[in-house]
Amino acid sequence: MACVFCEIVAGTAPAIRVHEDDDFLGILDIRPFTRGHTLVVPKQHTVDLTDTPAETLAGMLAVGQRIAQATRASDLGATGNNIAINDGKSAMQTVFHIHLHVIPRRDGDKLSFAKGMLLRRDPDREGTGRILRAALSQLDTIG
Amino acid sequence: MACVFCEIVAGTAPAIRVHEDDDFLGILDIRPFTRGHTLVVPKQHTVDLTDTPAETLAGMLAVGQRIAQATRASDLGATGNNIAINDGKSAMQTVFHIHLHVIPRRDGDKLSFAKGMLLRRDPDREGTGRILRAALSQLDTIG
Ligand SMILES: [Zn+2]
Ligand SMILES: [Zn+2]
Repeated sequence: MACVFCEIVAGTAPAIRVHEDDDFLGILDIRPFTRGHTLVVPKQHTVDLTDTPAETLAGMLAVGQRIAQATRASDLGATGNNIAINDGKSAMQTVFHIHLHVIPRRDGDKLSFAKGMLLRRDPDREGTGRILRAALSQLDTIG
Repeated sequence: MACVFCEIVAGTAPAIRVHEDDDFLGILDIRPFTRGHTLVVPKQHTVDLTDTPAETLAGMLAVGQRIAQATRASDLGATGNNIAINDGKSAMQTVFHIHLHVIPRRDGDKLSFAKGMLLRRDPDREGTGRILRAALSQLDTIG
């Protein structure tokens, strides 16, 4: 099996999961631009915007919205999020299993964001996962 | 009325339209990163991911997918697209009426993309609009 996201869905490759439902996983990006950078991955393999059903995209973005709301409510202290789908190699897609990026932003983080795009690491990935899962579960309680 | 996108929806501010349906407009970005850079704008005003209904996001992304497919099929020669929602000021949102960016990419365009992010202009906006409308109408014919 050549697709790393299919392997993560199958549980044969590791990932820090912050969300799971019948159709989608939310996992931490292993090379995050900012702390809490999350990928929403459909469990069903498709490649990009040319072959993914609109309903899958709708569900993927609904999960992304929920995660974006959680980053704002969480101890990550986000005040916004960059949401992105890289559709195709020329658009910087690197894993050819469609996914949505949720990249938490903070007021005045432009310099640390630029640095993060170069370093792309989180010294406390497990802690970040716990914070996001807690915020998501808090949102679910509020409804 | 303070919101430029509400003015465009109302027809009191100008825009080059490439798509319109009951709920969404597709308009060319006036400061495009690349040729064909399009914004999908819900006709109903909401601000960001904190107040926009998931159904609106679903429809907005479905229109964005269609436009992305059109850029690939069109004379713009796109081989991919960056899809983005800037959720909040810290995430570089500049118009506080939610919208989705569709930014056509081409193989080997990294340098011209970087240049485009600085220049942000299209010398033939009307021509770009015609090309995208033609490709969208062609897609509608194929189904
Ligand atoms: Zn896959
Ligand atoms: Zn508005």
